[in-house]
Amino acid sequence: MSIVVRTPRRTDKSTVDALGEFGVSTIHEAQGRTGLLAPALRPIYSGARIAGTAVTVSVPPADNWMIHVAVEQCQDGDVLVVAPTSPSEAGYFGELLATSLAARGVRGLVIDAGCRDVAELQRMGFPVWARHICAFGTVKETLGDVNVGVVCGGQWIEPGDVVVADDDGVVVVQRRRAAQVLEASRAREEREAVLRERYARGELGLDVNSMRERLAQRGLTYVDQAPDE
Amino acid sequence: MSIVVRTPRRTDKSTVDALGEFGVSTIHEAQGRTGLLAPALRPIYSGARIAGTAVTVSVPPADNWMIHVAVEQCQDGDVLVVAPTSPSEAGYFGELLATSLAARGVRGLVIDAGCRDVAELQRMGFPVWARHICAFGTVKETLGDVNVGVVCGGQWIEPGDVVVADDDGVVVVQRRRAAQVLEASRAREEREAVLRERYARGELGLDVNSMRERLAQRGLTYVDQAPDE
Amino acid sequence: MSIVVRTPRRTDKSTVDALGEFGVSTIHEAQGRTGLLAPALRPIYSGARIAGTAVTVSVPPADNWMIHVAVEQCQDGDVLVVAPTSPSEAGYFGELLATSLAARGVRGLVIDAGCRDVAELQRMGFPVWARHICAFGTVKETLGDVNVGVVCGGQWIEPGDVVVADDDGVVVVQRRRAAQVLEASRAREEREAVLRERYARGELGLDVNSMRERLAQRGLTYVDQAPDE
Amino acid sequence: MSIVVRTPRRTDKSTVDALGEFGVSTIHEAQGRTGLLAPALRPIYSGARIAGTAVTVSVPPADNWMIHVAVEQCQDGDVLVVAPTSPSEAGYFGELLATSLAARGVRGLVIDAGCRDVAELQRMGFPVWARHICAFGTVKETLGDVNVGVVCGGQWIEPGDVVVADDDGVVVVQRRRAAQVLEASRAREEREAVLRERYARGELGLDVNSMRERLAQRGLTYVDQAPDE
Amino acid sequence: MSIVVRTPRRTDKSTVDALGEFGVSTIHEAQGRTGLLAPALRPIYSGARIAGTAVTVSVPPADNWMIHVAVEQCQDGDVLVVAPTSPSEAGYFGELLATSLAARGVRGLVIDAGCRDVAELQRMGFPVWARHICAFGTVKETLGDVNVGVVCGGQWIEPGDVVVADDDGVVVVQRRRAAQVLEASRAREEREAVLRERYARGELGLDVNSMRERLAQRGLTYVDQAPDE
Amino acid sequence: MSIVVRTPRRTDKSTVDALGEFGVSTIHEAQGRTGLLAPALRPIYSGARIAGTAVTVSVPPADNWMIHVAVEQCQDGDVLVVAPTSPSEAGYFGELLATSLAARGVRGLVIDAGCRDVAELQRMGFPVWARHICAFGTVKETLGDVNVGVVCGGQWIEPGDVVVADDDGVVVVQRRRAAQVLEASRAREEREAVLRERYARGELGLDVNSMRERLAQRGLTYVDQAPDE
Repeated sequence: MSIVVRTPRRTDKSTVDALGEFGVSTIHEAQGRTGLLAPALRPIYSGARIAGTAVTVSVPPADNWMIHVAVEQCQDGDVLVVAPTSPSEAGYFGELLATSLAARGVRGLVIDAGCRDVAELQRMGFPVWARHICAFGTVKETLGDVNVGVVCGGQWIEPGDVVVADDDGVVVVQRRRAAQVLEASRAREEREAVLRERYARGELGLDVNSMRERLAQRGLTYVDQAPDE
Repeated sequence: MSIVVRTPRRTDKSTVDALGEFGVSTIHEAQGRTGLLAPALRPIYSGARIAGTAVTVSVPPADNWMIHVAVEQCQDGDVLVVAPTSPSEAGYFGELLATSLAARGVRGLVIDAGCRDVAELQRMGFPVWARHICAFGTVKETLGDVNVGVVCGGQWIEPGDVVVADDDGVVVVQRRRAAQVLEASRAREEREAVLRERYARGELGLDVNSMRERLAQRGLTYVDQAPDE
Repeated sequence: MSIVVRTPRRTDKSTVDALGEFGVSTIHEAQGRTGLLAPALRPIYSGARIAGTAVTVSVPPADNWMIHVAVEQCQDGDVLVVAPTSPSEAGYFGELLATSLAARGVRGLVIDAGCRDVAELQRMGFPVWARHICAFGTVKETLGDVNVGVVCGGQWIEPGDVVVADDDGVVVVQRRRAAQVLEASRAREEREAVLRERYARGELGLDVNSMRERLAQRGLTYVDQAPDE
Repeated sequence: MSIVVRTPRRTDKSTVDALGEFGVSTIHEAQGRTGLLAPALRPIYSGARIAGTAVTVSVPPADNWMIHVAVEQCQDGDVLVVAPTSPSEAGYFGELLATSLAARGVRGLVIDAGCRDVAELQRMGFPVWARHICAFGTVKETLGDVNVGVVCGGQWIEPGDVVVADDDGVVVVQRRRAAQVLEASRAREEREAVLRERYARGELGLDVNSMRERLAQRGLTYVDQAPDE
Repeated sequence: MSIVVRTPRRTDKSTVDALGEFGVSTIHEAQGRTGLLAPALRPIYSGARIAGTAVTVSVPPADNWMIHVAVEQCQDGDVLVVAPTSPSEAGYFGELLATSLAARGVRGLVIDAGCRDVAELQRMGFPVWARHICAFGTVKETLGDVNVGVVCGGQWIEPGDVVVADDDGVVVVQRRRAAQVLEASRAREEREAVLRERYARGELGLDVNSMRERLAQRGLTYVDQAPDE
Repeated sequence: MSIVVRTPRRTDKSTVDALGEFGVSTIHEAQGRTGLLAPALRPIYSGARIAGTAVTVSVPPADNWMIHVAVEQCQDGDVLVVAPTSPSEAGYFGELLATSLAARGVRGLVIDAGCRDVAELQRMGFPVWARHICAFGTVKETLGDVNVGVVCGGQWIEPGDVVVADDDGVVVVQRRRAAQVLEASRAREEREAVLRERYARGELGLDVNSMRERLAQRGLTYVDQAPDE
C-alpha cells in the first residue's frame, strides 16, 4: 500500500534556522559523528547552504510520479528528500518541479538519484544535492510513499527531521535531538573560534591540544634521517 | 583496415543551430527519451551549450594519433566526437589540438576518455565534455578510423549527426530525424512555458496534469499519521 | 615503529618555484610521462596552481592524528602530502589545520582521502587536491609516519620531492631529477609555443609534425563514402 | 553514548526457518519489492542460503572492537549484521570471530564492509555476505553500538528482524511483517510453480499472462523488416 | 513508436557453431580487436561457452515487459541480448524466463543490467553474462523494441549478429563479417598452437617473435644493477 | 630511458617458501598492517596460494611488449608483478605467456590491469591476481622497464621482494624485512591457534582478551531495552 502522511510533526522552525548557521561538518561532529549522508551526494552548484524540515519521498527507479504528490505536502521552510527504492541515475527533478517547490517556500532538494536542468536551477537559485546529474527522463507509472521514513544517502531520515546541506555535503538531525545538537554545535563553534585564532598566530595543535605526551607513550620516535638513508 | 571518410553527409546547419536553442533534457525528451550519452561525460567547465555536426573518431586506448587525422576533416559548425576502442583515462586532448580545431570553427569536443589543459581550455572558451580530466599523455603509434559510426558514452553516433551538449550532458540526434526532433522540441518547450507560469503561480502538478484520479485508482492513500506512530 | 623524520633534504626552492611556472601536463610529459598521481585526486576549487616540497604523512584509515604531528615539520614552501594506509573517505582535513599550515607558509595539501570545510578553504585561498569531499570526522588514536616514502594517488613520493598541482591534477618530480625536469619542461614549453602559433594560423598537425607518410605506411586509407553506404 | 541492547525481541524461530525455505528474490517480491540490501553485498562463496534473526552492530571505520562485544549477544539462530558508520574496505571479520560465532549457533554474517580469511571461512562452512574481500586489519579503539537500528546495504535493519541471504543477495523482513511476508512468499511460490511448468512446455508469458492486448493498446507494432532496411 | 522486428536475417548456423569453437579472446583478436563488450559483463557462473545469433531487446530502466515480448521471437540457436535505455541494476531476468527460453532452444542471455535466481540458473545450466547480480524486481509498464540495433556493453549489436561468450567475456561478430572472422580465427588458433608448443619447450617470445632488434632500436638497455643502487 | 635490470638481489628461497605457509592476512598483520595490495586485485580462480620473489615490470597502458622482455629475466620461484603506468583494463596476459612462464618455474602473476584466457589458466593451474578480467588485446609499440621499483595495487614493490597471494589478496614483504616478518608470522599463527581452540570451546573474545574493563572505561553501557522503545 502506498501512503501519503499529510501532517508529520516538524522540528520547530527557530531551531532549524539556528542550525542553519552552522556548517555540515560542525553539526555532524556535534552530534557524535552521526547523520552524515553519503558524500556522493554533491551540490549541483557551489556556495549554497540550507537548513529545513524534511518532507520525504520514496520513489521507484526512474519514476518521478510521487514527487508531484509530495509537492502538495511541502510548506515554507521544508527541504524535499527523495530516495529511490533501487539505485537510479535518472533525472527525477528539473526546473518545472523546482518552480513549483520554490512557489511554496521550499528551501532545496536532497535526492539520492539524478537531477537535470542544472543550469536553470542555478539561475533560479534553487539548490540541489544529488548523486547524479543526468538528463534521462522518468515515467509516471508506479506509486511510492510520502512522509515515511526513508534511507537516503545511507542515512535513515524521518519526515520533520532537520536536513542541513552545504558544500561539504548533507547531514540529518533527528527531530527529537535537534535542540540538543544545536547546543552542542554552538559549543563546538566557540571552541573552534579560539583554536582558529591560536593556529593563525602560529601555535601548534600538538601544544594547543597537549598531544605530545600521549604520542610519546604510544611510541612516536623523532629521527633526523630516515632509517635506511 | 583503418579508414577516413572525407565527405560524410552533415545535417543541415540551420536545423543544427535551431536545435542548439534547446537544452539537452528537452531534446532527449522530444525524441522519445533516446540519444542521451552516459552522464559520466561531464563538461570540463560549466555554462557552455553547443550544437554541431559530428565528426567521429575511433581511437585506440591511450593513443591520440587519429585526432590529428580527424582535425583535417573538420569544418565550421562541427563537433568532434572521440571514442576509444577500450576504456582509457588518458588525456587525449589539450590546448594545442583545441587551438587547431578552433581555427577551423569547430564548436567543441565530446570524448569518452580523458582531457587535459582544462584551465587553458576554459580560458580559450573551447568547451569539452569528457569522462575524465587526466594529464596522462598519449602515444601516436596505432591507427583508428575517422567518420565511421562509433559508440560514445553508450550511444551510437554517425558522422553528420547532431550533437547537443550543455551542463546536463550530451545528446545525439540522428541526421534523418533532426527536423522532426526540432519540431517536437519546439512543441515541448511551448508546453513547458505554460506549465512554468502556472507552477510559479502556485498551481500544483497534481491538478495541472489531472493526476489525482489515476493516483487514487492505483491505490494511493492519504493518512494524517504514519501507520505505526 | 612510528617515526617522524625531522630534516629531510628538500629540493632547492628556486628550482621548485621555476617548476611552478609550468602546468602539470607539461611537467608530466617533460619527465617521460611519469609521476602523475591518479586523476581521482581533484582540486576542491578550480583555478589554483602550486609547486612545493613534499612533507609526507602516512595515516591510518579515518585517523588524522599524524597530520597534527606533521604540521610542526612543515616550513615555508612545503606542500603537505597525506596517504592513508588503506582507502578512506573520511574528512581528515579542514579549516583549522589549514589555518595552522597557512601560518607556516605551506602552499597546499594533496590527500588521497577526504577533505572538508571546502567553502572555508576556498575563502582562505588554501588549495587542496583530494580524492573525496566528505565531512565524516576522524579520530586521534593510532600512529603513523611523517617524512617517509609514501604511495599517494598511485605514485611513490619521498619527502623533499617537488609536488606540482593545478586543475589538471598532481605530478611529483623526484628531488634528484628536478633540475633536469625543469630544463625539459622549458624546452617543451618553447616547442609548444611555436606549435600553438602555427595551429592558430590554421596549419595542421599532420603537416607540422610530418605525419602523413607514416600514416600511409601504416595503411591509413581515405575514402569519400563509408564502405557500406 | 555507546549502548548494547541485551534483549531485543526476536522474530519467532519457526517463522524465520519457514522464510528460509524461500529465496531472496521471492521474499523481496512477496513484500512488495522492499527490503533488498545493495547488490554490492555478495556471498564470499556460492551455494549458501541462510535465514536468521538480526543482531546488529554499528562500527567505526576500520575498528572491529564492537564485533567482539556483539558476539556475546548472539544466540542460536541469529545472523550478525555489521554496518560501519562510514564506508570502509577493512577486513573486520575472519576465521577467529567466525569460530566464536559458530560455537554459539550463529548462521552467518552480513557486513557492509570487508571480510578476510575467505578460504578458511569456506572450509568451515560459515557463510558471509560482504561488500569487500580485504585483508586489511582493524584496530580496537573506538566504541559503537549493538542491537540498535542500523542502515546496512542501504536498508534499515532492526535487531530481531529476519535476514535471508543466498546467491542473489540479502533481504531483510521486519519482525512485525514476518508472518505476513511468509504467507505471501508461499502464495508467490505456488503461482511460480504453475508458471514454471507451463513455460517448460513451451507456453509463452505473453499468453500465460494475457499481455497481448495491453501491449497493442500501448502501441506495440510488429513488422517484418526493420524500418530502415 | 515501439517495434518488434519478426524476421531478422540471422547468421548461418554452421558459421555460428564453428565460431563457438574459439574463445572470446581469439575471436576479438581475429577481427582486429573489435567487438568486445565491456568486461563488466561477467558470467554468473564459470565454465560456460556459447555462440548464438542475437535477438536484441531495448528495455526501459527496471522494466522487463519487452523480454516477454522477445521470447516469442527467439528460436533454436539464438542468444538473447538485452540493453536498458539507461543504466539499471534491476534483476530483469530469472528462472522463469530462462525456463521459457530454454524450451525454445535459446543458448543463453547477455544483459547489460541485472540478473537474479543465479543459483537456479546454474542448476538449470542456462548461462548468463550480466553487469549485475541483483534481486530487485522490475515492472511491466513501458514499451521498448525487439530486434533493432542496440548498444550493449558499449558495442553496437544488430539482430542476427553472432554473439560468443565465455569466461573471458562477450564478443559480437557482425553477420556480414562472420565467415571472414571464422577464417581469421582458425588461422590465429593455428599460429598459437605452434607458439604454445615452442613456449612450453622453453623458447622465449623474444626469439620466437624476433623482437630483440626492434627493442634495441627503441633504446632498451640491459644493466646488471639498478641505476641508483 | 627504458632499462632491464638483469640481476636483482632476490630474497632467500627458504624464507620465501616458509612465508608461503602463512596466509596473506597473517603476514599483513605480522608486518604491522603494511604491504597489502589494493583488494581490487582478485584471484581469477579461488583456492590458490603462492609465495615467490618479485620480477617487476612497468608497462604502458594497453601495451604488453615488456612482459615478453620480462619473461627472460624470470627464474624458478619468481612471481611476475606487472604495473601499468596509467590505469588499463586491457588483457595484457593470457595462456601463451603463462605457458612460457610456467616453463621457467614461475609461480604466478600479479597484475594491476587485465588478464584473459582465464578458463585456460585455471586448467593449467597457473594462478593470477588481476584487477580486471578482460579480453581486450594489447599492442607491442612502447617500451617500459623490468626490475625497477613499481607501484602495484597501491604498494611499492622492488624486484626480489617477496609476494604472497591467496584468496584474501596479495601482500608484499620487503626483502630486507623478510626474515623478521617470517618470525612474526610464526608467532602470530601460534597465538591464533590458541585463540581458535578457546573460541571453538565457546569462550568469548571479551574474556580471552580482557576487554571488559577498557570498554567500561570508555563508557560502554548495557541496557535491556533500546532507549526509545
